[in-house]
This record gives sequence, structure tokens and C-alpha cells, in this order.
Amino acid sequence: MAAAAPPPPPTPAPEAPTGLPDSDSIPVGHPLFSRIRLATPADVPHIHKMIHQMAIFERLADHCIATESSLSSTLFNHAPFSSFTVFLLEVSPNPLPKITSPNFTPIERIVQLDLPVIDPEAELFKNGTNDVVVAGFVLFFPNYSTFLAKPGLYVEDLFVRECYRRKGMGKMLLSAVAAQAVKMGYGRVEWVVLDWNVNAIKFYEEMGAKILTEWRICRLTGEALEAYRDTF
Amino acid sequence: MAAAAPPPPPTPAPEAPTGLPDSDSIPVGHPLFSRIRLATPADVPHIHKMIHQMAIFERLADHCIATESSLSSTLFNHAPFSSFTVFLLEVSPNPLPKITSPNFTPIERIVQLDLPVIDPEAELFKNGTNDVVVAGFVLFFPNYSTFLAKPGLYVEDLFVRECYRRKGMGKMLLSAVAAQAVKMGYGRVEWVVLDWNVNAIKFYEEMGAKILTEWRICRLTGEALEAYRDTF
Repeated sequence: MAAAAPPPPPTPAPEAPTGLPDSDSIPVGHPLFSRIRLATPADVPHIHKMIHQMAIFERLADHCIATESSLSSTLFNHAPFSSFTVFLLEVSPNPLPKITSPNFTPIERIVQLDLPVIDPEAELFKNGTNDVVVAGFVLFFPNYSTFLAKPGLYVEDLFVRECYRRKGMGKMLLSAVAAQAVKMGYGRVEWVVLDWNVNAIKFYEEMGAKILTEWRICRLTGEALEAYRDTF
Repeated sequence: MAAAAPPPPPTPAPEAPTGLPDSDSIPVGHPLFSRIRLATPADVPHIHKMIHQMAIFERLADHCIATESSLSSTLFNHAPFSSFTVFLLEVSPNPLPKITSPNFTPIERIVQLDLPVIDPEAELFKNGTNDVVVAGFVLFFPNYSTFLAKPGLYVEDLFVRECYRRKGMGKMLLSAVAAQAVKMGYGRVEWVVLDWNVNAIKFYEEMGAKILTEWRICRLTGEALEAYRDTF
């Protein structure tokens, strides 16, 4: 189901370090240099692959008809944050090359791991130099609350590739969206979760979210939607 | 709750006539001339009043902090359909004055009623000449399905003033959004309903919607959202 953030790690992810280390400090263990940045049209091939992995993970591969071409033509048509927006998560065992972005200051973290990550798809998700790979993404867009008379942000998809799960990456991506909402003065961040996914629900509640137990989503799609073509 | 279409009529509304009558035909009973058009900033006072009526209807008046000013500054900032969009429903016992709109051809219907509508708030919702009053609205905006790689439309609020309910007006407003989605080649129309509102669920199912029973909305708002201000 596309209208869904996939389940996060079954156990709450460890807290990410609170910032880059001082120049004097030397990371211990195996550092994973992580960065969240705004995705661009050049990222579509990686986003496309992750969407298909997400569909397989959710056992909904048959429902996923996204292509690179259809993603390219429907994303990135508006200014970031005013419409469909993607944050990309990049990681590397080595320091990340510096980048700048006019619309969003990339968020960087060093996650200390006991063991290095073995990424069987590193070649497929390689992005530039310094062993940088794409590890996940979050796709979101503005929604609106009439009661607040304020926009919010709706998270359509949150995905972290399998070998990078349980390291606080999902929390980092969702926190980035929440921080962006606060920065823009927006009133809410919303997303959906499967009611039987108790680990995901616990994780989201620990992040401060309330689960709206009484509300159900109604969806008009396919032939049922097509039937309205000649209504007026 | 703002993330909600209010309950539609408890019994399915009668079908609206399929079009304007031929010039030879004379409406029988009491015709209610109805029109859906794009709202403009000039409609904010009426929209504001209806949002507060909706909040009272949903027993959530305390949660409704929308003002004319906050609505004016957050709606109408983008082109219609590319962001938050409002369709306004106007009705009159007399033929409606002609209007044109560059972005949306108004939808007109004549609803035949057995009895004329007594509108105790006609003065408050008066809009122009010919006894035209504002009778309802629907607020919607684009959402996105990654699996379809297509936008959809999300209906945040659907409201018909009390004296105009059970006349097919809610169906007309929601159908207008569905027809617009089809016209734009979008993949879905979605909204939410309270799980105990069996009449609303029946009404929506009759309109072709599926109820997604397993999904729950997660919401981060207020202080829980504000806590992310200094996350990065």
C-alpha cells in the first residue's frame, strides 16, 4: 500500500549522536557518516528502486506501477516543500563530501556502530565518490487543517534499506520532516500506520505522535474513480 | 477534528437531475438552482463561518482557531488544484447569475424539491443578487501515491449547511472533486470518516469508495511537534 510508511525497526532505534564530533574527538567503533538532503531529479533512479523494494517489503509489489519516467514527470514540478518533496538519506563509512543546497541545509550525523554495515547492494545504490550510498528516503507534501487554518506536512512514505535499519535512520528522516514543519510554522505532521504493527505504533508514540484510533481512510480509485469522468 | 469530512446525510441523498432542463421543460415542484464554483479570497468570510459551524457540528469548537485572517493568508497562495483548493456551493430558488472562471467551469444543477428550503441564515450567507446563498464547501489538495507515481486529491473537509442537507449536495460536491481528479489524470481521491459513522460509511461506499480498515492516522502536533524545533 502506497499510503503508508513501512514499519520501522521492531525495537526502538538507538538515539543518534547529537552532532558532529569536535575536531579533537576521534569516533570510536565504526562510524557511519549520514546525511539528509533534498532529492533532485538526478536521484529518481535510486528513489525508483527503493519504492519497488518498499512494495516488495509490504507484499504489494503487484500494486506498484511506478517507473523512473512516471516519477520524473510527477515529482520536482514545484518548489521544495510547496508540493511533493523527497528527503534522501545518504551514508558512507567515510566523511561525506561537502554539498550545499539553496533550499535546505543538509542534516549530518555520525552514527557509531559496533560493527560495519555490510551492504549487499552498495553498487546499485552508489552515489558519487567516497563510498557514498543512498540508504533511504522520505516523501512528504503539504496538507491543510481548516481548524488550525494552517498547513501541515503529510508523510506518504518513509523507507530505509534493510541493512541500514535499526540504526536510528528512520527516526532521523521523520525527525527531519518534523523539524522542517516547525521551521515553517506548520501545525501538524501526519502519516499512517497499519493497526497490527504494534512495534511501529510504539515507535511513533515514542516520537510523540498520537494514533487517531477512530478515523478510517476512504479511497476512491481505479474504475470506481473513472466512473466520475462524465458526471458533469 | 479538522482532518475529517463531516457525516453526510443519514440516508442516501436522491440523485441530482442530470443536467439543466431543455428550454421547453418547466421545473416542477420547488427548484433549487445549485452551482459549484472555485472559491476566491472574497469568499473567506463565508468559508470561515462554515468552518466554525462544522466544528460545532463535530463538537470540536474548542479546537477550531481559524480566523478570516489566518484562512486568507494560508489559502489561495497557489494556482487552483496545485495546492489547497476550495469548491463553493451556491444555491438559489431563482436562476443563478452567469459567471465564468478561467480555471474551472462551474457545475450547475437544478435540484427539484417537494418543499422550498427555509434557510434561517440566508442573510448571513447571502452572496450577490437573486437570493443566492452559500450552502456548502469542499476543501481539498493534491496528495501523492508513490506506487502509482501519480498525484491524487485529498478531501480535508466537506460541509453542507444544515438546511441544505439530504438533498444530494454532499454527493454533488464530492463528485465534483472526483470528476476533477479524473480530468487531471490523477489516481485517487481520499478522505477520512469516523469508524462509528455507519451512515457516512454506507454513503461513501455507495459512491464507490473503499474503506481502508487496517490503516490508522498518526499525528504529531502541538508541544510534541514543537519539541523537534532544535533537533538539528
